[in-house]
Parts: sequence; C-alpha cells; structure tokens
Amino acid sequence: MPELLVLSKHADEYCALLQAEHLPNLEIKTAPSPETEIVFGEPDLIRDRLDALPALAWAQSTWAGVEPLLDPGLRRDYVLTNARGVFGPLMSEFVFGYLLLQERKILQRLDAQRQHCWDPTLTGTLRGKTLGLLGVGSIGAHLASTAKHFGLHVRGFTRSSEDCADVDIYFHANLPAFAAGLDYLVSVLPNTADTMQIIDADLLQALPAHAILINAGRGSAVNELALVEALEAGRLALAVLDVFEQEPLPTGHIFWGTRNLLITSHTAAPSFPADIVGLFIENYHLYVDHKLLMYRVDFERGY
Amino acid sequence: MPELLVLSKHADEYCALLQAEHLPNLEIKTAPSPETEIVFGEPDLIRDRLDALPALAWAQSTWAGVEPLLDPGLRRDYVLTNARGVFGPLMSEFVFGYLLLQERKILQRLDAQRQHCWDPTLTGTLRGKTLGLLGVGSIGAHLASTAKHFGLHVRGFTRSSEDCADVDIYFHANLPAFAAGLDYLVSVLPNTADTMQIIDADLLQALPAHAILINAGRGSAVNELALVEALEAGRLALAVLDVFEQEPLPTGHIFWGTRNLLITSHTAAPSFPADIVGLFIENYHLYVDHKLLMYRVDFERGY
Repeated sequence: MPELLVLSKHADEYCALLQAEHLPNLEIKTAPSPETEIVFGEPDLIRDRLDALPALAWAQSTWAGVEPLLDPGLRRDYVLTNARGVFGPLMSEFVFGYLLLQERKILQRLDAQRQHCWDPTLTGTLRGKTLGLLGVGSIGAHLASTAKHFGLHVRGFTRSSEDCADVDIYFHANLPAFAAGLDYLVSVLPNTADTMQIIDADLLQALPAHAILINAGRGSAVNELALVEALEAGRLALAVLDVFEQEPLPTGHIFWGTRNLLITSHTAAPSFPADIVGLFIENYHLYVDHKLLMYRVDFERGY
Repeated sequence: MPELLVLSKHADEYCALLQAEHLPNLEIKTAPSPETEIVFGEPDLIRDRLDALPALAWAQSTWAGVEPLLDPGLRRDYVLTNARGVFGPLMSEFVFGYLLLQERKILQRLDAQRQHCWDPTLTGTLRGKTLGLLGVGSIGAHLASTAKHFGLHVRGFTRSSEDCADVDIYFHANLPAFAAGLDYLVSVLPNTADTMQIIDADLLQALPAHAILINAGRGSAVNELALVEALEAGRLALAVLDVFEQEPLPTGHIFWGTRNLLITSHTAAPSFPADIVGLFIENYHLYVDHKLLMYRVDFERGY
C-alpha cells in the first residue's frame, strides 16, 4: 500500500478531496515517514523535506513552476511531475480580461461616470489585432484558441514544437521581427536559462508604442529596468505583470509607482485544489499500473 | 442607374468607403432628390427625410435598432433592412470584458496597487458559471459561443427559434425559473411591446445576490427603479448598463450615483463604418439582381 505525503499550505483541503475519492490502497499522511513513496504538494515545501524521504519515487507538484526542485545540488532520483493543462483557461480569463480592460476603455468610462459624464468615446476592439505569444505550450495554445475566437492574428515564439493550429505563424529566432507590429505581447514562459531577460530593451524597442505587454509566466523573463524606461518614455502603452523577479514585490520597488503598469500579485492562474487533485488522480492510476506518468518534468530542461 | 442617398453623421466616411468599392451603376448623393431610390444611414436621420423621398424603395439602417422608423404614423411602403451579424463579436468583447472585470477583481487589485500592497486574493473564474441570455438572435448566439469557449453553462430565454447549439437549455416563459441560480444575466433584447420592463422587480428578486446583470439591448427592458432598489439593498452584485430609457442619461438621474452600477454610455457595439458598408454592399448586389434582401425588418414585429 503506497504511502502518500501531502505537503501543502492547503493540506486540509487536499486531504479532504483525496479522501473523498476513496483511492484504493493509498495511505494519506501529512508528515514524512521512511515509507513515504509519493509526495503531493508545493515545490518549496517538498524541497525542504527531500532529505527526509528515503523511499520517494514520485513527486506531484501542485504548481506549474517547479524551480525550487531544480537546484542542481538537490537529488533527482525520483519522478517529478508538475501541474499542466488546467491553467490554460484560467490564463485566458486573465489575459483577455486585461486586454479588454484596455480596449473597452473601462477605466476611462469609470472616471467619466464618477463625474456624472456621458462618455460615448468609441471603443477599441480585439478583433483584427495581432497577439504575439512567448511560449506556446499548453497554456500558450489555449491563449491562441481564445485569441482566434476573438478574431485576432496570432504569432508564436517557441524553441520547441509547432503543433498549435491556432498559431498563424511561428518564430524560432529573430525576436525583433516577431515583435514588430504586435498589438499585444504575452509571455507565459517558464524560468529557464533560455528565457532569462528575454523581454529586454531590444525587444521592447521593437514593439509599437501602442502595444500592451502581459507577463504571466515568470518574472525572470523581464528586464525590469528596461521595462520601466519604456513605460516612462511612453514607448509602451501598458504592462500587466503577474510575476516578478522577487515575490511578493518588495515595498519600495520602482514598479509600484511606474506609470501604465498594473500589478496582479501572482493571481493569474492559481492552482485550484479540485483541478490539481484531478491531475493527481489521473497520474496515480498510471502510477499503480506502472505506466509512464503524465506531465513529467525534465530536470535539465526545467519544465 | 439607382440613386443612393447617404444620411449619416459619418456621411464623409461612408461615402469614401462606398466610392472605393466602385459599385457599378450607383450614383451616391448626400442630399435627397425625387429620384432617390435607396437610403443608407441612421434611422433618426432617415425618418426626418421620409416625406422628401417619393421614389424610396429600400432603406438600409446603419444601426441594429430602427425604432425611429417604426412609428405607426410613418410610411411603410419601402423595404427596411437593419444592421445585423456584425455586432455579435463586439458585444462579446463588451460583455466578457465586464464579467472578467468583476471575476478577476481588477478594480480591487488596482486599489491595492495604489496602496503599494501585494494582494494575492484568489481570483474568481468564468468557468463553470451559468449565463442567462435574454434574447438569442445573432448577437445572443455569439455571446453563447463565447460563453462556451470560457466553459460556462448557457440558458436562453426567447420567444422565437431554438437553433443555437451553444445554448444548453431554452426557456419561453416562466422568467423566475430562468433566472433562478444564474450567475450572469445578459439582455440583448430589442425594444418591443413584449420586452418592455421585462427586467422587473420579480425577475431581479429571482436572481441570486451574487449575480451580475448586463443590459446591452435597449433601456426599455429594465424597470429602472426596481433595479436601483435591488442594487442599493445588496440583492444584486453588479449591473452594467449600456442603454437607458433616455439617452444620453440625463444629468441628475439616480443611476449616476447608484452603487455597484456601471454606465457605459451606449458604446457596447458601435456601427463601425467598414462593417456596415460590407452589409450594404452585400444587400446592394441582391437589390440590383431583384433578389430578396437580407436583414429585413418586420415593421409590426419591430426587428
């Protein structure tokens, strides 16, 4: 009977959801033991207990990002799986919520209303605009499908597969050509050596001044100073940042006061326990059948 | 050679777009003449000239709503066509922009940012919610398709056809049953005798207190006092009103100061000239071929 350790800030909720599934032959615990074979939880909490889990065979992360477990000094003698597939719809709600906030002039209309002023200013539209996606994995593919529903053109920048039918054109290099003429640039890139500061002064310079940047991947993808300079100089219309080099964003960080910059405090695509338990259960059935697990992380590649 | 009269606040733009099409055998004018056979423009401007157009055979409205031409005292000896099909995508951008504003807690996060405060409050989601559509014509059908993309359940209330595959369940009567349990109620109803004050105290009472109401059809569908009472009593979370009994909304109207009520000044789905000219051209080709025009208005039904 495999022993499962739940290591999460939401352990009570996860345990209740798991108990309700009545998984055969699974013993659910919230404290490590020498027999712990499976761990399910947040990567930072798992990292802190790695040395206390001699029998660990599989760790299922409740997050998409697993940086805490990728440190080369840590053991890699177990299968690491992350959360995938459930974040695309949430990320679409986030990204298109903020694109529509800007296009529909929602804040301007709120200001007009506060002044009891009828404001028939013509709306902008998503339709016909061009979206550039940095990262076209399962999240990027879902964003592309939402973009197509709203009538956008979609460019994808990726180092890997080209299997998303909703991407009109792929780029693998030449970031300035990818960025030229974009109305919206959205990053959902993970934190890897390749993605570090990929949104730099050159890329920002290549965007039109009316463009909107949304970073919902990892904070390391953005050169923060270059972004502040572009926004303050009016060379970019709006940036919406969900993720940062350091989180929570430190008090006194220049971003708090940067104009045309919106901060969403890493809320874009939360791990809702019901979704994540669904992933775990799918994988658990594969595990007990000795089949290959889904959503395996390549420790070298980092995702 | 048919003579076309353009009667629009945007006549210059419409004439330029029409000239660029080089339509054969069409003479484009901006002043009425005894030979005017076709009129293309805003219904209120057309109404004012109806008596000066003895040869009028067809009027193409640039708007969806044609109330100014429906007065029983006005002539009806011509074919009236309105603008349709082009508003669905715009209306989806409007409706889902405001639903996401609320679900993603965008205004709350803006307030937190003003206080330099990291606010990781969990987001709400569209996914799994239930949308009720009052009116399921071409606009309602497009809203239903967007709702399905975002994973919503969709109810439709209509007196007519049931041909939208994205509507999960239709209601034809019993408004309280339709409204019970809805998360979002969206009206895109035209102004007719049947739709007058359909959103009344009883319907509002049937909605859950967390529900959002969006009216993007016509102002006459809402009992304004009943809505104010529901909002002020906290029996409705949010109302977004694009249309009103009287437009522009009069200075001093109670809506300007009603809590949890957003006013968008009839901007939800504007008639973009390029779209409307496209409709006119389609119909013009049918007209010269003596075929039945699209988007004909039934003067009795009112749409």
